[in-house]
Amino acid sequence: MREITKRADDFARWYTDVVIKTELVDYGPVKGTMIIRPYGYEIWEIIRAELDRRIKAKGHKNAYFPLFIPKSFIDKEAKHIEGFAPELALVTHVGDEKLAEPLAVRPTSETVICFAFAKWLNSYKDLPILINQWANVVRMEKTTRPFLRTTEFLWQEGHTLHESQTEAEKHTLDMLEVYVDFFKEILAIDALYGQKTESEKFAGAHTSYTIETITQDGKALQSGTSHYLAQNFSVPFDIKYLSRANKHEYPHQTSWGVSTRMMGALIMAHSDDNGLVLPPNVAPLQVRVIPVASHKEGVKEKCAELVETLVKKGIRADADFSDNTPGFKFAQAEMLGIPIRIELGPKDIENGQFVLVKRIGGVCEKSIQQGDKGNKGKTEKDDKPKKEKKIIPLSKAATQVSKALKEVQNFLYTQNKNLLSKKTIEVDTLEKLGGAVESGQFAKTNWCGLNACEEVVKQKYAASARAIPLDIALDKKFKPKKACAICGKPAVTVVIFAKAY
Amino acid sequence: MREITKRADDFARWYTDVVIKTELVDYGPVKGTMIIRPYGYEIWEIIRAELDRRIKAKGHKNAYFPLFIPKSFIDKEAKHIEGFAPELALVTHVGDEKLAEPLAVRPTSETVICFAFAKWLNSYKDLPILINQWANVVRMEKTTRPFLRTTEFLWQEGHTLHESQTEAEKHTLDMLEVYVDFFKEILAIDALYGQKTESEKFAGAHTSYTIETITQDGKALQSGTSHYLAQNFSVPFDIKYLSRANKHEYPHQTSWGVSTRMMGALIMAHSDDNGLVLPPNVAPLQVRVIPVASHKEGVKEKCAELVETLVKKGIRADADFSDNTPGFKFAQAEMLGIPIRIELGPKDIENGQFVLVKRIGGVCEKSIQQGDKGNKGKTEKDDKPKKEKKIIPLSKAATQVSKALKEVQNFLYTQNKNLLSKKTIEVDTLEKLGGAVESGQFAKTNWCGLNACEEVVKQKYAASARAIPLDIALDKKFKPKKACAICGKPAVTVVIFAKAY
Repeated sequence: MREITKRADDFARWYTDVVIKTELVDYGPVKGTMIIRPYGYEIWEIIRAELDRRIKAKGHKNAYFPLFIPKSFIDKEAKHIEGFAPELALVTHVGDEKLAEPLAVRPTSETVICFAFAKWLNSYKDLPILINQWANVVRMEKTTRPFLRTTEFLWQEGHTLHESQTEAEKHTLDMLEVYVDFFKEILAIDALYGQKTESEKFAGAHTSYTIETITQDGKALQSGTSHYLAQNFSVPFDIKYLSRANKHEYPHQTSWGVSTRMMGALIMAHSDDNGLVLPPNVAPLQVRVIPVASHKEGVKEKCAELVETLVKKGIRADADFSDNTPGFKFAQAEMLGIPIRIELGPKDIENGQFVLVKRIGGVCEKSIQQGDKGNKGKTEKDDKPKKEKKIIPLSKAATQVSKALKEVQNFLYTQNKNLLSKKTIEVDTLEKLGGAVESGQFAKTNWCGLNACEEVVKQKYAASARAIPLDIALDKKFKPKKACAICGKPAVTVVIFAKAY
Repeated sequence: MREITKRADDFARWYTDVVIKTELVDYGPVKGTMIIRPYGYEIWEIIRAELDRRIKAKGHKNAYFPLFIPKSFIDKEAKHIEGFAPELALVTHVGDEKLAEPLAVRPTSETVICFAFAKWLNSYKDLPILINQWANVVRMEKTTRPFLRTTEFLWQEGHTLHESQTEAEKHTLDMLEVYVDFFKEILAIDALYGQKTESEKFAGAHTSYTIETITQDGKALQSGTSHYLAQNFSVPFDIKYLSRANKHEYPHQTSWGVSTRMMGALIMAHSDDNGLVLPPNVAPLQVRVIPVASHKEGVKEKCAELVETLVKKGIRADADFSDNTPGFKFAQAEMLGIPIRIELGPKDIENGQFVLVKRIGGVCEKSIQQGDKGNKGKTEKDDKPKKEKKIIPLSKAATQVSKALKEVQNFLYTQNKNLLSKKTIEVDTLEKLGGAVESGQFAKTNWCGLNACEEVVKQKYAASARAIPLDIALDKKFKPKKACAICGKPAVTVVIFAKAY
């Protein structure tokens, strides 16, 4: 159970070890598929419930659309088919019988939802239409990794129709903000929020916004997107309505989604060499009480009583009454990323107290700075998980544990925010850009806006334009002070390059 | 919106009208697929939450398994492939590339879950393993109808492993009981609970139990099943564990599930010619407040205040402040099956009261007894929806509305229970059996236990053996008093025949 590769030795293997050994996930029989095991699924259920509440609070209703989409639908939007065709799983047979038209297993649901929208929309009075779907989707990618990229994944996809471009664009950004808050408050993750470049945007979108989280080894992970689709789908799918001016108009559309990939972002942000580190707001179990000398009279009872007190306060808590040693139980609670462990023995009971230990982990400096020659001396600094032991009076259990949970949540968010800020550096030459991305950093670059320069970076350093930072993308008066770091021609904006998962 | 075919004129069309016109569901672009629209999905969300809580309370954990299953897996259990092969959707291509082995889109997940169980199970200490999954499944049936039979549907499927046959058999029945309670308490449905005959059991099961609900036109609808799989899957999938006796043993397995078909059972049980009738415990909206003379001072405010009072009590309530007439609003609330509507106008406010109207519907005698010559005179009796108006003091709103909601729930359950009991009749000849099923009744029949007799009924009357009633199936000492109604040979048990959806 405990053989987890160290991040500094092999970050990719560390990740796989963590997700497999903590039983979050397992491999399915078909290449690239995953089984989400109960512990992983409990985390997903918390994520889903929290996000669902936030999405509904913005007026969206959930619905469910078919898994199978006629292949001809996908073909209707030229860029859409270009983007998805190579990954499309196609059903061609039912039993021994060949189908007249192959059915695509949905890679995303724009097209089938447009089919429904065209039936449902009549008048401007029906607008906005605000729909969300929780579903599985399939993209048959060749290189896969649990949660990060799997041929099937679970997600939520929002699809909305609006009267005007302005309203739809605002909605695209509003939903991005819903995600930003969710990432902060629940996942304890800060991220690079911004606009995708033309070459990186969603197949069929007018504008794509993205959430690029940073991993401990300094790579970017696209963890959520929100798209303004303009009328790119409403025109080919003939979605029309009678406007206020009594004319037939095409609505403006948005779509936005986050997926089980967030589970990967979560793990790569906080976890450490001892296993998972989970922010309390997303941890299936927030507190585990571990009896010390549990055979002594009254110890088990006191532990059970304490759990009851915490559960009554709405804290997800249990006690470990198994036959294992306390040391084994501590290690296991640590590996599972339970945010707080409580130790309670006869002496504590005598003194009316207990010991509280926070599971706050620590980002791995070595994995962060791999290849970053200038900082070699510091590499071991934060490598050990940070532990904080506190003595708490039993009478104050509920309030003090609640407080400690908030502290862990805040600590993890701040740690992740600091990591992102520390690892985002400004570069003004192609060489520095390359040095930054190759040493696991986000390279903030003045850019001419041409895809040719993105291609240069891709070819030379296998890094891509992750996003134009949101404040810059939205600032119409923004003028870069320096030239494009790649071609030296006048820059029109700023973009962040990084290697990506 | 209001053109719903009458049940007495065409029950099947009435059903389609209700589900389409109340916007529960719409047709997808691929034949046999459905779109679950927001109102329908809200009902499904309530069903899912209620069932999920009950399933977890029995110790099950949710997990998620892949949609795609290697075709060879399905082939491993001989009866399983025989049952599912003709309906299997097969993915043969990714983009233009042909796959080496076709992938089956799951029709049910026994096989892929067995693959995982074989990896996870080591020792008797790991048992029982109690897993549940909420997922979409695909069975490419030719004749489809929204909710009742669609090529893709949503469901929950439980899968468990146990040390002994006794324990697994008990678990199979325990889960049936969970469903029975759920059908009663949430859906307000009574049903025929029983064991499937050999020819009707699940493909691969040792024993199948079923929930057969009755529709207003007297047909059976298989609305849930629970199976004891014995070692039929654990042997071919090589799921083994080290037993207490330190020997390698195969565990005993169960699986059980209910699906979006329940939505069909719900509608066919309670709804009427004016639209939906929803039991309060499953209604997305339990109470709608409709202002009368809403332009008069204070009316809207009082309505809003009343909604707030009810919502605070945990009642799902809203007010209809649209520009429509009260009459239109009444009809719409009725069509949507909102269990209670409240009328509130200036005079009511003056008198400190409001009017409460229950939406309790009424089963359609005509549709029940179609072809039942003996009762022709009574056919119109209960055809009109039953309405009950009550004057309630505003000061007692919360308690009186809660009480009325319980009354509606109980009324609908009792009405459905009476329908089932009234429509289940004992028959002792093949002719009477035929008369019963052809006039929309459940025919309770002494039976020799041979499939040949089931085939006779199927050929002659297009009716099937729905179930051996549970009490009889579980009573090992049971001896039928009469001969098999079909062949006249000695009977071994009792079985209920009916036409089925």
